[in-house]
Amino acid sequence: MTGGPSRDPVLYSEVVERVRASDTDVVLNLTAGMGGDLVLGGVETPLPVNPDQTDLAGATERLEHVRALRPEICTIDCGTMNFAEGDYVMTNTPSILREMARQVRELGVRPEIEVFDTGHLVFAKQLLAEGLIDEPALIQLCLGIPYGAPDDPATLLALVQNLPPGCIFTAFSIGRMQLPYVAMSVLAGGNVRVGLEDNIWLERGVKATNGDLFARAVTILEAMNVRVLGAAETREKLALNGHGG
Amino acid sequence: MTGGPSRDPVLYSEVVERVRASDTDVVLNLTAGMGGDLVLGGVETPLPVNPDQTDLAGATERLEHVRALRPEICTIDCGTMNFAEGDYVMTNTPSILREMARQVRELGVRPEIEVFDTGHLVFAKQLLAEGLIDEPALIQLCLGIPYGAPDDPATLLALVQNLPPGCIFTAFSIGRMQLPYVAMSVLAGGNVRVGLEDNIWLERGVKATNGDLFARAVTILEAMNVRVLGAAETREKLALNGHGG
Amino acid sequence: MTGGPSRDPVLYSEVVERVRASDTDVVLNLTAGMGGDLVLGGVETPLPVNPDQTDLAGATERLEHVRALRPEICTIDCGTMNFAEGDYVMTNTPSILREMARQVRELGVRPEIEVFDTGHLVFAKQLLAEGLIDEPALIQLCLGIPYGAPDDPATLLALVQNLPPGCIFTAFSIGRMQLPYVAMSVLAGGNVRVGLEDNIWLERGVKATNGDLFARAVTILEAMNVRVLGAAETREKLALNGHGG
Amino acid sequence: MTGGPSRDPVLYSEVVERVRASDTDVVLNLTAGMGGDLVLGGVETPLPVNPDQTDLAGATERLEHVRALRPEICTIDCGTMNFAEGDYVMTNTPSILREMARQVRELGVRPEIEVFDTGHLVFAKQLLAEGLIDEPALIQLCLGIPYGAPDDPATLLALVQNLPPGCIFTAFSIGRMQLPYVAMSVLAGGNVRVGLEDNIWLERGVKATNGDLFARAVTILEAMNVRVLGAAETREKLALNGHGG
Repeated sequence: MTGGPSRDPVLYSEVVERVRASDTDVVLNLTAGMGGDLVLGGVETPLPVNPDQTDLAGATERLEHVRALRPEICTIDCGTMNFAEGDYVMTNTPSILREMARQVRELGVRPEIEVFDTGHLVFAKQLLAEGLIDEPALIQLCLGIPYGAPDDPATLLALVQNLPPGCIFTAFSIGRMQLPYVAMSVLAGGNVRVGLEDNIWLERGVKATNGDLFARAVTILEAMNVRVLGAAETREKLALNGHGG
Repeated sequence: MTGGPSRDPVLYSEVVERVRASDTDVVLNLTAGMGGDLVLGGVETPLPVNPDQTDLAGATERLEHVRALRPEICTIDCGTMNFAEGDYVMTNTPSILREMARQVRELGVRPEIEVFDTGHLVFAKQLLAEGLIDEPALIQLCLGIPYGAPDDPATLLALVQNLPPGCIFTAFSIGRMQLPYVAMSVLAGGNVRVGLEDNIWLERGVKATNGDLFARAVTILEAMNVRVLGAAETREKLALNGHGG
Repeated sequence: MTGGPSRDPVLYSEVVERVRASDTDVVLNLTAGMGGDLVLGGVETPLPVNPDQTDLAGATERLEHVRALRPEICTIDCGTMNFAEGDYVMTNTPSILREMARQVRELGVRPEIEVFDTGHLVFAKQLLAEGLIDEPALIQLCLGIPYGAPDDPATLLALVQNLPPGCIFTAFSIGRMQLPYVAMSVLAGGNVRVGLEDNIWLERGVKATNGDLFARAVTILEAMNVRVLGAAETREKLALNGHGG
Repeated sequence: MTGGPSRDPVLYSEVVERVRASDTDVVLNLTAGMGGDLVLGGVETPLPVNPDQTDLAGATERLEHVRALRPEICTIDCGTMNFAEGDYVMTNTPSILREMARQVRELGVRPEIEVFDTGHLVFAKQLLAEGLIDEPALIQLCLGIPYGAPDDPATLLALVQNLPPGCIFTAFSIGRMQLPYVAMSVLAGGNVRVGLEDNIWLERGVKATNGDLFARAVTILEAMNVRVLGAAETREKLALNGHGG
């Protein structure tokens, strides 16, 4: 562990090998979000870009660890937006997204399309229409992240109503709305995502572990009489090929 | 007329002077959208940026024509997004937007906040909360532009429900949905925008003029028994100071 | 003309014969809403019912004029509700609605299902599921009538999202919202209804004729570049058999 | 216990006295829904009404037990509708509702306004506008009951957006959707209702007690980090006078 974000294939490999060597069967999903970090030079001189903080890689380079490790799923952040404050732009142009989708498909990996605002979903449907994503599409609605789509129910429903027919989706929110969104996503017809990437608190003043958050999600779902699928059923539902196992 | 987009203050001045010299009283609203054009170097080598197509200016430089001409209103494109295809990014970071809002306020010009997706509206409310925009905020919901918010009614309503209290808004869509959106915006509680910037067709196969589109909008509104305001009433409603007259 | 509501087949026959004898080709749609009028005896003694104002007829009797005149379409008010004030109840129980739907289908007449609130639509789908209505269902969303569904866009969209797949629908509102709803219905994917039954004003202070209201609707639609169908195209779209022609 | 529904004040008194004599502090809320049962005579002869199954009482008579027992809250079913199948109509006309609201207010009891469809909410707001209900209004959105409003999220949101400003509301659904709606109501900004009146199953094949359902609701809410109020805090929030304690 380096404590920082990275797209070094060696680090990914180390983690993936440990997961695969373990007795726990999980569906393996690697981010391909790294390499889309653009930081401009400042308010009055946006160019040249800030060289220390910018990490903008080409499509092939961004997928190096996916190519090496062949997870069952990898993410594709389906657009460009202001993400947090300052001079930072999360940058994924139509050109690079098309090429990443093409390569991911060729690798036999299923893409999880990350949608941070309603326009990202428009582009996701464009990728589907162009045959660059196989059906059923796996779509992650990422809500409550500044400055993407807010997590109010009306915005969520507008997104859900615009989903491509037959897709499989999850909606999540961040921070203190992560756990309520376990229920919200299911009530809107979706699946569930929790974990430290989006929220570090179990409750006010209590730091969480991934295990804690997962247990809470299961508690909410089972109390609502919603059944939680294991890895094998999930593979079948998501049309995964299992080479990540 | 050069036939291309520009942020040359001399060209803006020429147009503004003709408008001010005319007998027609209109509310003057100048774009400040120029200078946010980033074109990456390509799918495999995003950096360095494409120098010929990129026009990324600092906050002060982007407002030069506004400073010189003091229109009643100028636009602020309230976010960053993939706009159209290829390697292009419409780029307006939180940092530059805060500085542009600050300068526009100092100039005594009213900003029209252009919102192309739901996250842009979240940031607009952040600017309001920070006191960088005066109330009532003027908000333009720009729909149907790839790859921003689609123009289906549910997405529009989600945006409208997230508007800051007391703001004055307009919603428009582009292309063949521009004229239907004249009615849609009013039905959602908003005002109306038409013009060649968003749509060049009056009907299938018939090119429009701005006058044609305006006349059509008036026809729709008056047939619905909606009253159209003139320039003086509009100034009062939008809390304009009139120095653009 | 008697000036009052009636379900006397003789009166209906007189009107229908004049229409059929005319040179104007229209789709003929007769109400079957009469005979569902229940007026209770009062606040402290609801029973016995008010005998002078109550007109509650059986299913067969309510369809007498439809049986005699065989219009292309007849209405079925798909539920029970407080309609206006006082002790009045618009009364159409599940039992009588099933029998009316059965008889209308047997007559070869297409029913226009009038939905005044979201629960009426639930029952309409129940009739469809039971095979008592042929597809595509013709559904009229009747909004803004106290005390049925209000005509705000969110309520309309909730209804539209709950429509049975493949149905053909219209949404209308009453009074001063009738003309704006010409656009609203089309924007929500529906067709258009105007006329003196729902609104008697062309504009503030100006009484309308049916012709006036129809002309206004056409003006709105054509200005939005929406095409208006004639009687023949309408017959095809609504799967009518034309025996009303 | 008689095993049947009743509006006999003696039976209500017996229950209320036991509750008040117990050590458990609860907010007491009595139904005033009895006495609105109209059953028509049949499909071909709707009148006279079915005398055995009809129980249609006047406003004063329907509130006899409320007058005698002065609970903190009593319900008012805010409209008329087909409720379940057959010839049955749940009957509450505008006239009788106004008189019931007037009497409940005079008794110093807080009304819980039961809304079964969007039009009932329109009438609830009418009662508020006429001063017949004190603010903050307590509104119960009753969903999923045939043939009232369905419990899909879009219909719920349409209702929530139409609530009167400042009201306190709960939304519930019935049967297998009761427990998921514990989360749904809170996510929409409301409070929670569970109990055997609306659902008799804890999970598939397992009959519930009120205690079971309550415990499940608490489990869901606490796992979402939502705090559950006790009787004293509830009294303060709902502006109750506590004479039911």
